[in-house]
Formats: sequence, C-alpha cells, structure tokens
Amino acid sequence: MSKQKPSVARGTRDFGPSVMAKRNYILDTIKAVFQKFGFAELQTPAIENLNTLMGKYGEEGDQLLFKILNSGPFADKLTPEERALDSKALTFKISEKGLKYDLTVPFARYVAMNRGEIAFPFKRYQVQPVWRADRPQKGRYREFYQCDADVVGTKSLFCEVEILAMLQEVFQALNISVAVKMNNRKILTGISEVAGAQGQEATLAVAIDKLDKIGQEAVLAELATKGFSNEALEKLNPIFTVSGDIAQRLAFFKNYLSSSETGMLGVQEIESVLEMSKAYGVNLDFLDLDITLARGLSYYTGAIFEVKVLDVAMGSISGGGRYDNLTDLFGLPDVSGVGISFGVDRIYDVLDELDQFPTQAQKGTQALLANFDEATSTQVFQLLAQLRSQGIASEVYPELSKLKKQIEYASKRNIPYFLMIGSEEAANGQVQLKNMLTGEQSKVGIDEVAQNLLLN
Amino acid sequence: MSKQKPSVARGTRDFGPSVMAKRNYILDTIKAVFQKFGFAELQTPAIENLNTLMGKYGEEGDQLLFKILNSGPFADKLTPEERALDSKALTFKISEKGLKYDLTVPFARYVAMNRGEIAFPFKRYQVQPVWRADRPQKGRYREFYQCDADVVGTKSLFCEVEILAMLQEVFQALNISVAVKMNNRKILTGISEVAGAQGQEATLAVAIDKLDKIGQEAVLAELATKGFSNEALEKLNPIFTVSGDIAQRLAFFKNYLSSSETGMLGVQEIESVLEMSKAYGVNLDFLDLDITLARGLSYYTGAIFEVKVLDVAMGSISGGGRYDNLTDLFGLPDVSGVGISFGVDRIYDVLDELDQFPTQAQKGTQALLANFDEATSTQVFQLLAQLRSQGIASEVYPELSKLKKQIEYASKRNIPYFLMIGSEEAANGQVQLKNMLTGEQSKVGIDEVAQNLLLN
Repeated sequence: MSKQKPSVARGTRDFGPSVMAKRNYILDTIKAVFQKFGFAELQTPAIENLNTLMGKYGEEGDQLLFKILNSGPFADKLTPEERALDSKALTFKISEKGLKYDLTVPFARYVAMNRGEIAFPFKRYQVQPVWRADRPQKGRYREFYQCDADVVGTKSLFCEVEILAMLQEVFQALNISVAVKMNNRKILTGISEVAGAQGQEATLAVAIDKLDKIGQEAVLAELATKGFSNEALEKLNPIFTVSGDIAQRLAFFKNYLSSSETGMLGVQEIESVLEMSKAYGVNLDFLDLDITLARGLSYYTGAIFEVKVLDVAMGSISGGGRYDNLTDLFGLPDVSGVGISFGVDRIYDVLDELDQFPTQAQKGTQALLANFDEATSTQVFQLLAQLRSQGIASEVYPELSKLKKQIEYASKRNIPYFLMIGSEEAANGQVQLKNMLTGEQSKVGIDEVAQNLLLN
Repeated sequence: MSKQKPSVARGTRDFGPSVMAKRNYILDTIKAVFQKFGFAELQTPAIENLNTLMGKYGEEGDQLLFKILNSGPFADKLTPEERALDSKALTFKISEKGLKYDLTVPFARYVAMNRGEIAFPFKRYQVQPVWRADRPQKGRYREFYQCDADVVGTKSLFCEVEILAMLQEVFQALNISVAVKMNNRKILTGISEVAGAQGQEATLAVAIDKLDKIGQEAVLAELATKGFSNEALEKLNPIFTVSGDIAQRLAFFKNYLSSSETGMLGVQEIESVLEMSKAYGVNLDFLDLDITLARGLSYYTGAIFEVKVLDVAMGSISGGGRYDNLTDLFGLPDVSGVGISFGVDRIYDVLDELDQFPTQAQKGTQALLANFDEATSTQVFQLLAQLRSQGIASEVYPELSKLKKQIEYASKRNIPYFLMIGSEEAANGQVQLKNMLTGEQSKVGIDEVAQNLLLN
C-alpha cells in the first residue's frame, strides 16, 4: 500500500470538533422546538432503491442522483450489446440503488409502507444528510444536511399556524431576525383564472416570481412570449400595484378574485391561518403576504412559506408549504400534509457572520488536570473521577511532561480551567486553579473544585 | 410515473419514532460519557474517494465497499477494450468514490489531513452510519451505525484506564451487566517468541482465539498443520492450564515470558493499567485477563478489549484496543492511539430483550388537547401555547372531530394526558384532565395544568 496525500471527495466536508459543536447547537435548538410541538424523529436509510427515487425530481434530479454500483461481479452477465449502451441506459443495467436526494420522498415512501401502523395525523421530523451530484461551489455541497418537519394526514389549517409558531420560536431561540413570506397556491390559481389563463398558473408563477429582480415590464413580456394574450396581461395589471398592510391586500384580492372559487378559497385559508395564529399567540410582526412567492409550485397545493434573514444578505434560510399528493406516487392517495425545512448550512453561515454563536455552543472540556509529578498522580486521578461524577467534562494531560506544554495544550483546546496538584497542594488537600482566560491563579480545597468551576 | 409498491433497499432499515427514541436513549447515554471524558465530536462524509478506502480492509473489504458510479456520462469515454473489462477492472474506470466502510479509516485520513491544526493528544468521538455490501442476515445490515471514541497522539496507558472507566460508566448508566476481557498483543508476541515461533503470533492468535469453542487438542492440532514444531507446541502447553485470579495469572506470565522482552512489556502494561485504574477508582470486578483474546490482531499493537453481556446470549457488544500505525497509510507515522467501539444495534437488542428501556426513553408528547368545540378553541390554543412555553411537549388534535376518535389517537400515540376544555370549563377557567394510563379524570384550573403534568 503506497502512502497517499489524503483528501475528501469533492463537494463533501469533514466537521471537526469546533464546527460540530456549533452545528449541534443549531440542530439541538431546532429539534427541541420540533419535540415541544409533538414532532417525533424518523430516520430513513441513506441508500434507497433507484425505483423509489427516479422520476420524483424531474429529469435534472434523476441525473443528479448518486447511483451505487451493484455489488459483486456486476458486469459479468452483461451481453456485448449491453456493454455498448450509452451511459444512461447502461446505468440501469449495473445500478439498482442510489443515495437519497432529499428527505421528502423517503418520508413519503415510509408513510405509504407503514400506513397501517401510523396514527394519523403523523407529525415527524427528520435531520439527515442527503446527496446531490451537483457541481460544487461556494455554499453548495454534494453531501449536506436537511432538517424537516412535516404533518401528514390532515388538512387542518392549524398545522400552518404551528409552522409559523415554530419559525418564530426557532429564530427567536437562535437570536436571528427574520421576515417570513407567506402565499397560497390557490391564489396563484385564482389569478390565472381571473386573467382567463386557466391551468397556466405554473407559467404565471415562474414569471411573477422574478418581479423583484426584473420588474413588471419584463414579467409581462415573458408572459406574452409564453402565450398570455393582451387581454390576459391587461387583467393582471392590478396585482402589480396592490399596496397596504396584509388586511388591505387581502381585501383587494377578495374583490379581484371574486369570480374564482379556488382563488377565494386561497384568501379564506390565509385569513383562517392569521386568525388562529392570533388566538395561539404567534407574533405576526415578522409575517408578510407575498403573492409572487411560488417556491416549488409544482409541489405545493396550499400555503407556501419562505424565510429570509434581515441582517445578512443571503438566500432563504427556511421554507415549506402544503402538498396534497405526496404519498400518491407510492399508492397512498389523499394524504394532505404541510412541512417546513430549515437550511442548516445557511443558518450556520448567518450565525457565524453575525458572530452570534453563544459561548455555551462551543463548550467542551471544562478542566484540564496537570500531570507533572508522579508522586501526586493518585490525587490527580481521584480529582478527575470526582469532577466527572459531578458532571464536569474534564481531562488529565495523559503524559508526564513540562507544565508549559500542558498549559499550551489547554490553551489550544480552549479549556477554561487548568488544575495542578503538586506535593505541597497534595499535602494540604488543595488544588491550584488557573483561570485560562484571566490568568488568575488561586488555591482551593480539593472538595471545592467542582463548586468553583460550576460557579464560573 | 407508475404507482409502485414501496420498499427499502435490502439490508437497510427505517427507524420510526418509537425505535428512534430508544436508539437516541442509547446514543445520548454514550455521548454524554464521551463528552464528560473530554472527547469531542467529529463527523466525516459518507462519501470518500475510493483511494482513501481501498486496500485498508483486506481483499474481502475491498469487495464489500459500496462504490458510487461517476456522475455524468461516465461511460461515454470508455474505449471498446475498457467496456469489455471484467467487473473488478471496469469498476475503477467508472467509479472513483465509495461509501465509508468504518469510522476508523476516515478518522485516520482526517487526522493526517489536519495534523497542523489538531492539538495532540486528540480525543474524538464519532457516531455515524457505515456501509458494507455484505449478505444481509439477522442482525447484520448493509447500513448500520458505528459509535467510536479514540485518543491519538499519545502512548500513555492512562488512556486505556479511561476506556475501562468509560465502559464501566456507559454500561452502568444503561443498566447492563457486562464482563470486560482485556489482553495485550505484546503477550501474544511474547508467547510466540517463547515457543520459538517468532513472527508467528498471527497464526497463534487465530488458533488460540478458538480455545473456548474447539478445546486445547484442536488448537494444538491446528497449530501443527500451520508449521508449529512439536517442541513449540510442548512449550505452549503451560498457557492452557494457567488458573487463579488476574494477579496470579500475571505472576505466571512474568515467569513464563521472562525470556521475551516484548512479552514482559505486555505484562507490565497490563499491570500499569490495573494500578492506575485502581487509583482512578474503576471498579475492576467486571474485568478479566484473557490471553486468548485476539480481535483484529493485525491492527492492534497493545491493549485489546472486548465486552460481553452477562444476561443475554449475544456476541461482543463493544471492543477496541491500541494501535500504533493508524495514520501511517496517509503519510503520518508514529501516531499511537487507543479506541473503543460500541455496538449500538446489539446494545439495542439487549435492552429490548431484557425489557430495560426506561420509560423516559420513550417519552414523546405529554399532553393532547382535545379539539371538539369551536367556541372554546381560542382557550385551547392559548393553553397549548402556555404548556409549550413551560417546556411541555404538547399537541392539539388538529381537526374538530368526535372525542372518541381523539382519545383513541392519544392512546395509539402513548400520550399520557388528554385535556379537554368544553364551554363549562371555559367559563370557569378550568380544564378536564384525563390520565390516559389510569383513566382518572379531574378538573383543574387552567393555570395549574402544567404543574399537574410536571408533577406526574
């Protein structure tokens, strides 16, 4: 075996101890909220059968699936004709499994497979890595975590309220100021109906979603090229000039959409969510209605959510919505659900940029015990055992060596306390306690060390 | 897209909510001990470059690696000759990445890559899935978790003491009675030297490891077929009849191995570990010396550990040892380390068989609030928000429906409390509180609900 210069696979990352501590702070915060709201954890395998994954993410998604080579002598039974196939056709002769692309499709598979066991409504959260054979670039990885919570098996709009409440709690706990945009696909459907472009809401949504970036003229021009008539474009005009607060804009749409049953239902759904949010006590200051929000329209059937950070320029850090046909593909129709997904990597970057990770998020070992005098090692070992029994993460420097080296080690590891027991301390039942941050040093009784550390 | 009967890939598993709660109980218990001992978490990617993985696990291991098909048109540039290659040779033309096979090799890669940043001794733990293209069978999966802690960068035998202390703490916390066997590879080396079969310790170990199963005669017969002389076998005889406690057996080996420097060092190492364990306060009642223990001998260079459960017939549930050359393959020589690995799936099976998961390990939502009277829904929502703000995981049944259905749901979900606010309760600021376990029902003031739940 030759020595090799080690590297990680392109688009993947190691998470070393200090990064892990910060990631765990984010994930633990989110999980605690999920649990308080009654969501239970699910984990599905990294490996799924390709027929579970293929065709669920569009053609581009199929290409971005990581496929796993069949194990054993996968090529031995291939005919010469099969060996000559192009890459795409050959893939299915030599690969039956892939790495999961998101958490949603495996969740749908799980629900369909376990429909008889599950008590519906089913609230589950899932925090696991997913894989995409994307071209890696800044902030885009081939292996990354998704962090999702979904309720399936109920159309109750109170689930939407709970999503708003969870967003509020999570970002309050993380101390990140956010704006939440909400829309409802039924409103987009209604708008296309009012404009006389039934069934064209997908085209409408794709164009209108760019309003912020390209402006009204360009949106209308794009729609014209996609077959919207002048009359239809005329009818769309009012929606670009709606203003006022949420109530005022809803009043406008109640009028504008009055000829569309679906559109009116969308308005009512939003009103119900707002009303119940108020009853529950969600502070709606962070909420805005954005009828241009379309995020994965092909998928959502009701509410659509998106969360942006206020203090950092960054794409959305969370998003979700209601869907009606998630498990349909796996033979289980009529399971409506609503979900929210947190972008862990982006939240990490936001907290990093704002320098807002609390020190407790970086808390590791609290005390390093010096190991410099064999004569006192029994006392040192006993103190170590005692500190741990009191729940204090602590270590002894494992080798007898110079104090300087050991202090440097404590410093490099960000361990806040350095404890020494020399012969004099051992004789008096004492410990030298050095605060690594202030440099202060004091003698304390051996039984009072834990107390001293816990106080600080 | 056609509807399909969903299934998981062979050898993989979903972990639903109740299983996850139990798995988390095990993993959280182990992680808490790791952290108290100063180990910090590391995560490495699932995907590694094949050249990181190949050649590290023997020829069988290479075959059991899951290989990932190169993305994009992987076959387009293959020559006709390459397309005709056998499976093994073709693999390396169409695959450059694989799924990690264990946590140890990626850890070694990480250490070698980050040698400049790491403060040695480096104590890390890692709890992640690994993948092996093994034939699935009862208790053997293709995707399973490993749970490892290692210290690298020191030869200090106190690290071995800490492993014994961690084993004691973990299994005490999990309430599992275990026996820990310890050996030292240097003793096996010494025995082969004393027998005049230098460098044959691997053969010796493989044979002697079977002593329990096949007996002394068969072990000696196997060694004879492997080229051990009659004289050598004669010299081995005494080791089969050693008896007494650890001290007595160590005394025997001190005499028996006196001509082997390495063997004597092995005895001394064990003595040091025992002595320091006593000073630290490890209760050594669970420890035995087993010179037949060889577990991955090609790898270990010092201490070897193995843990068996006392009350359930089951293979080892934990094991580890010291190695000297882990990072050598990645160009970083002379990094000694010692590690321990916990078999999460087997520990799960033990706790399940003994029915010893604590109820707190299955604790999910504590209270379900009934939703049967629209007139009181504001009070219900407010109570829900209040309970959550007091840290109590709670839910409201999201749809207005019959109480019977809602109580059945609480029962199926194992939610211990069912809370109802009808018009009478709403008027009096009260809540009907039903204990789902006892069936008891009582009225309590709306502000005292949390207190009542927390008391129980």
